[in-house]
Amino acid sequence: MSAFEPLDPNFAARVRASFARQTVMATIGARLEQLAPGAAEIALPFRADLCQQHGFVHAGIIATIADSACGYAAFSLMGPEAAVLSVEYKLNLLAPARGARFVARARVIRPGKTLTVCAADVFAIESGRETQIATMLATIMALVERAGLERGT
Amino acid sequence: MSAFEPLDPNFAARVRASFARQTVMATIGARLEQLAPGAAEIALPFRADLCQQHGFVHAGIIATIADSACGYAAFSLMGPEAAVLSVEYKLNLLAPARGARFVARARVIRPGKTLTVCAADVFAIESGRETQIATMLATIMALVERAGLERGT
Amino acid sequence: MSAFEPLDPNFAARVRASFARQTVMATIGARLEQLAPGAAEIALPFRADLCQQHGFVHAGIIATIADSACGYAAFSLMGPEAAVLSVEYKLNLLAPARGARFVARARVIRPGKTLTVCAADVFAIESGRETQIATMLATIMALVERAGLERGT
Amino acid sequence: MSAFEPLDPNFAARVRASFARQTVMATIGARLEQLAPGAAEIALPFRADLCQQHGFVHAGIIATIADSACGYAAFSLMGPEAAVLSVEYKLNLLAPARGARFVARARVIRPGKTLTVCAADVFAIESGRETQIATMLATIMALVERAGLERGT
Repeated sequence: MSAFEPLDPNFAARVRASFARQTVMATIGARLEQLAPGAAEIALPFRADLCQQHGFVHAGIIATIADSACGYAAFSLMGPEAAVLSVEYKLNLLAPARGARFVARARVIRPGKTLTVCAADVFAIESGRETQIATMLATIMALVERAGLERGT
Repeated sequence: MSAFEPLDPNFAARVRASFARQTVMATIGARLEQLAPGAAEIALPFRADLCQQHGFVHAGIIATIADSACGYAAFSLMGPEAAVLSVEYKLNLLAPARGARFVARARVIRPGKTLTVCAADVFAIESGRETQIATMLATIMALVERAGLERGT
Repeated sequence: MSAFEPLDPNFAARVRASFARQTVMATIGARLEQLAPGAAEIALPFRADLCQQHGFVHAGIIATIADSACGYAAFSLMGPEAAVLSVEYKLNLLAPARGARFVARARVIRPGKTLTVCAADVFAIESGRETQIATMLATIMALVERAGLERGT
Repeated sequence: MSAFEPLDPNFAARVRASFARQTVMATIGARLEQLAPGAAEIALPFRADLCQQHGFVHAGIIATIADSACGYAAFSLMGPEAAVLSVEYKLNLLAPARGARFVARARVIRPGKTLTVCAADVFAIESGRETQIATMLATIMALVERAGLERGT
């Protein structure tokens, strides 16, 4: 999935532990399905209680999986002492979030010591057919000084 | 809250009915608290099951209330036959989403027949003190032709 | 360069005529170098009078060629009666705009009757080596009703 | 214009010196007209050689003044040793850039040691009447380590 060399050989365990602490992922039913240096994929089955007014999954829930996929794509390339933080992102909605499940595929576009730029594409999957429904461009930050963040305080 | 003249005198009932159909709002515990022509405010109490890895509310959940607030600010100025759709948005995270509750305040910057540009500021509230935690700039679309959307099909 | 079918078989002449009317392109020395259905490429040689304070080409000039490349990628797929308009874009700067020349390569991500979403990558070229310096995500609009725009009034 | 306290009492001279080194500003005829801690205003008279295909000023030129206004609003609050760099921005075009002159008014939304978030509104002015034509949301970075940037190398 990528051509990046991780700083931390243990990156996968670090990402999976962080993902497991994101309580919102369990709440919405999202799972981290793929992980490679500079790339991450999060999947979400459709649920009728995550929708907007037309019965499609709400753009904010699509953003939730795309944002975390970008964050973990970036986090996979950071050193073991870094915490990860979303600075900002832009999301374009390309089609209604209609389907049996959704998958957000993120990749690092430009890694950096402080800032990493990532992109994610989100697809709806229905009967094995994928339709792109959104694209995200995100800026992610590595925090090494603010130790409090790591401890969740 | 605004200086806009609504096309539809019945805009408030129309917005509230649409908000009530957004199942994700009940799922996360968000409420539409204020509404005026061209402005909307959605509030969300903190919940430990909506968080990212550091125990702050996930940016995607913050985006969910900010995006809907922008959508309804725009929708309040549309005619009764229009459906509302988010085209895209950008969200800047300014501070950790830490607090007892959160409120997204959206306003129309530029209304249009097809496209409306909105901004939202999101605040964390703790012991009566407000801290801005995010800002959003969004493009919202009025759909009048695609009747299927209105029926959720 | 693309898998899109143009509505207008004469799209290339239409795009080139529009580009020729963009006076800013001659002012900064930019040229439309490649064109295909759903894709466009604009090149800009370095000039010391287009720089920011560190001697790199200003991000706004990089945005100028990326925005027009996105606009023309979208315009290439529109019907002969449409005018093209940028609704909004986001630009991430990835590296200083340092090099002998720059090229913005845009492609349509999602075409639409009214809105088309495009992405552009911008590269600096020095001694035959390309470095990506920016990436853009843009929303472009087709206008068919407002005839005045086409006449420049 | 603002409620921020500058770290550097000499901020105005520092900003003006940096602006004077932006060669693109002289090329397009832009001037820094207002400056206060956390706020900056850049004006641009209309010129027929800065236009897009309909005779309006090109969105990239509007971005050029808005981006620099954001950068200098942020730079005004930085310490004397910092260099300033645009990380990314989003620009929404609200109306055609038609008018005798244009002014980009930027303000700091959230200052930070490393990242500062700014917003800018751009207005067209014709016969004393102002029309908002664009709005920008930008992330600006303070660089203190990479001394080479300051020397333009």
